[in-house]
Amino acid sequence: MQPDVRIFPHRHLLGIEGLRRPDIENLLDFAEQAVEVSRQVEKKKSILRGRTQINLFYEPSTRTQASFEIAGKRLGADVMNMSVARSSESKGETLLDTAMTLNAMRPDIIVVRHAQAGAAHLLARKVDCSVVNAGDGAHEHPTQALLDALTIRRNKGRIEGLTVAICGDILHSRVARSNMILLSALGARLRVVGPSTLAPDSLSRLGLEVHHDMRRGLDGADIVMMLRLQRERMSGALAPSAREYFHFFGLDEEKLALAAPDALVMHPGPMNRGVEIDSAVADSPRSLIREQVEMGVAVRMAVLEALAQHLPNV
Amino acid sequence: MQPDVRIFPHRHLLGIEGLRRPDIENLLDFAEQAVEVSRQVEKKKSILRGRTQINLFYEPSTRTQASFEIAGKRLGADVMNMSVARSSESKGETLLDTAMTLNAMRPDIIVVRHAQAGAAHLLARKVDCSVVNAGDGAHEHPTQALLDALTIRRNKGRIEGLTVAICGDILHSRVARSNMILLSALGARLRVVGPSTLAPDSLSRLGLEVHHDMRRGLDGADIVMMLRLQRERMSGALAPSAREYFHFFGLDEEKLALAAPDALVMHPGPMNRGVEIDSAVADSPRSLIREQVEMGVAVRMAVLEALAQHLPNV
Amino acid sequence: MQPDVRIFPHRHLLGIEGLRRPDIENLLDFAEQAVEVSRQVEKKKSILRGRTQINLFYEPSTRTQASFEIAGKRLGADVMNMSVARSSESKGETLLDTAMTLNAMRPDIIVVRHAQAGAAHLLARKVDCSVVNAGDGAHEHPTQALLDALTIRRNKGRIEGLTVAICGDILHSRVARSNMILLSALGARLRVVGPSTLAPDSLSRLGLEVHHDMRRGLDGADIVMMLRLQRERMSGALAPSAREYFHFFGLDEEKLALAAPDALVMHPGPMNRGVEIDSAVADSPRSLIREQVEMGVAVRMAVLEALAQHLPNV
Repeated sequence: MQPDVRIFPHRHLLGIEGLRRPDIENLLDFAEQAVEVSRQVEKKKSILRGRTQINLFYEPSTRTQASFEIAGKRLGADVMNMSVARSSESKGETLLDTAMTLNAMRPDIIVVRHAQAGAAHLLARKVDCSVVNAGDGAHEHPTQALLDALTIRRNKGRIEGLTVAICGDILHSRVARSNMILLSALGARLRVVGPSTLAPDSLSRLGLEVHHDMRRGLDGADIVMMLRLQRERMSGALAPSAREYFHFFGLDEEKLALAAPDALVMHPGPMNRGVEIDSAVADSPRSLIREQVEMGVAVRMAVLEALAQHLPNV
Repeated sequence: MQPDVRIFPHRHLLGIEGLRRPDIENLLDFAEQAVEVSRQVEKKKSILRGRTQINLFYEPSTRTQASFEIAGKRLGADVMNMSVARSSESKGETLLDTAMTLNAMRPDIIVVRHAQAGAAHLLARKVDCSVVNAGDGAHEHPTQALLDALTIRRNKGRIEGLTVAICGDILHSRVARSNMILLSALGARLRVVGPSTLAPDSLSRLGLEVHHDMRRGLDGADIVMMLRLQRERMSGALAPSAREYFHFFGLDEEKLALAAPDALVMHPGPMNRGVEIDSAVADSPRSLIREQVEMGVAVRMAVLEALAQHLPNV
Repeated sequence: MQPDVRIFPHRHLLGIEGLRRPDIENLLDFAEQAVEVSRQVEKKKSILRGRTQINLFYEPSTRTQASFEIAGKRLGADVMNMSVARSSESKGETLLDTAMTLNAMRPDIIVVRHAQAGAAHLLARKVDCSVVNAGDGAHEHPTQALLDALTIRRNKGRIEGLTVAICGDILHSRVARSNMILLSALGARLRVVGPSTLAPDSLSRLGLEVHHDMRRGLDGADIVMMLRLQRERMSGALAPSAREYFHFFGLDEEKLALAAPDALVMHPGPMNRGVEIDSAVADSPRSLIREQVEMGVAVRMAVLEALAQHLPNV
């Protein structure tokens, strides 16, 4: 592990914003190798043996936490899960004090999820170890964007020049935000599709096509990326009814027929079947949803290993 | 690990029903060896090194989850606990979507507990890895029956020909159901004992003796297997009072005196002392309750190792 | 691991009370070595490989459980966390039945936290493995006292002859109690400081100076050890307001100026900033709070390894 062969130039992965295209592509290339590790009988490397990884989750998440836990263990790390909602937070300790406490235990990597945008950056400024942002409020979820890009690239052979339609609650979605930044950086053409309350016209100032009519938004798209409708985060009056939402913005085979003939479908999960996506589409051969999950473990293994190159070497 | 020396012919352990007697006996013989592993200083084999075991528990259970976790770790597996009640389920994801998500992370074994009968079978049909049923509704709990059989065999030298009285809430108990199938298959004579609401006469159609008078039910029994009274699962009107239940169906020394002179007492835990069992009996030398727990770890190690023989070999 | 080179003469660590001074000092010396393990790249020993450590927590605690988990894993143990509040306890199983169940799974070490004083002693009498008390009611928290002593010794070079002022809710604090016993045994001069409801005059019978005026209590002190104000454990009428408490007993720079010029500040965490301690003090160079956390992992590694010497050797 010498500095001149580093996979990734930064000690932390806090977001996609600000990353250079070759750094993103390096990570994706490196993740390709990690895919193979999980397909072997002994899915284990020892690159992180004796290293301590803490998964610090202030919001519950079965899939993301599991993905990071499996990734860390397959690299040989000691992985410790901390679900803080049920513990110190209830005793009133701040994120920073918790961070400083954990830092004093000399972990090598902290994976953090928090409801507040900026929480991962705050943490990274205060600790000595590497920090991976596993989702901070409506801000970023960089490993999700990386796994989505890896999945697209494996299935389409490229990202440059593809038309990607991201559909649903763009406004509140860190998944959408990280994906828009990453896919733009790699040369995709981006559209966002949703009701004006969730995909406001102001997004066009970011250079995106904004569509409120899903049929026009999907027209000719190569990738249709659905988002989870997070009704639990919407206040009562703004939450659309599931039936109404599905009618206008749920992805069914009829709407999908308007996309490119070889269009593929993605969803970060967990899905609300019958709300933002129809089961027939979710389970069809055109769905990449399961492969996204597999790529999630690979991307996280790649990220953990790449960041570990920045840890002190003695 | 060659197919011709497989310990167990199936890739999953979903229930006792349908298993052949020699397969059950093979597992019990194999578990005898696992008992010794846990009694050594270094309680560790590496047979599952680099393998991923997921404990997917939709119902909380200290002892069963702990037993599977210890078993997996003693075989060298990476063990991941997922208590889904607190996570994805609350976001409305179905069992099947969670299963497909986990499957995409390429685990080798999923251990599942769920409140719905049939959940483990459903899962097994959808995933590529091995599935162990750790309890599905009132249906089956196969490792409990195996550990009970192992405990009986070690103490009585045989199961064939023994009279086993299973006492309590037969109707709702997956422990009772798996035990009845397994002990019948191994040649025990079975009685079920309980009030008619919990041990209905219709059970006699399964070839069981049904007793509503505990004194007659215990008469001459070699094994008295008490069940936990799960009052938390009974609706108000049907839940018997603890005092009344103990009077008629709680196992105390007076009732136990009616069983065979060398009768032994079992309970799957956790016990309601003073409800279905008296403390004097639970803690007496005739109680096998602690040995059952030890055998639980051994049986689970044996099952995990036996199923792992069916995983892809490269 | 021969008996004649044992680091610690007991199989359990249940409290500081009753320990001899050389045994305490041995543990502290041994912990100094463990500090270095966590500062290496590969923070891993294999001394507990194949051993099973169970963290049995009846009260939630992010930091203490994490500290024991990291300590055990860095020694190579298989660590299993059991948060019992959410599981068996709700099914009504007693501490002793849970202990007997766990014991039958043949762990090597059980780390227990419980709201009842005496819980760790009760457990230790019933199980075959080593028991570490991680806090039992208002009784003892021995690893906290050891880590505090180690931190003091590393910064002051000694404990003998130092004046230590323990400030806050002395009456309900197991941290205070274990520290008072340990620091007295090592020759410190102890003062307790707090309102008469929390630091009653009757404590003077234990040979302590009792102060209700914080300015007098801190006068010339070498170490100022603040306690967490556990308002969640106080009944309404007795709980002081945060503002009022801070005015009289919160540690700010003005009050700290009355202590010795090189006085150092400690807090077991989690802190209530602005209640018992001012942020300026907590984050100042005179604060040892972060070092306490690091020493916590080292002390727990030392304790786990020392107790493991008492486990059966074949």
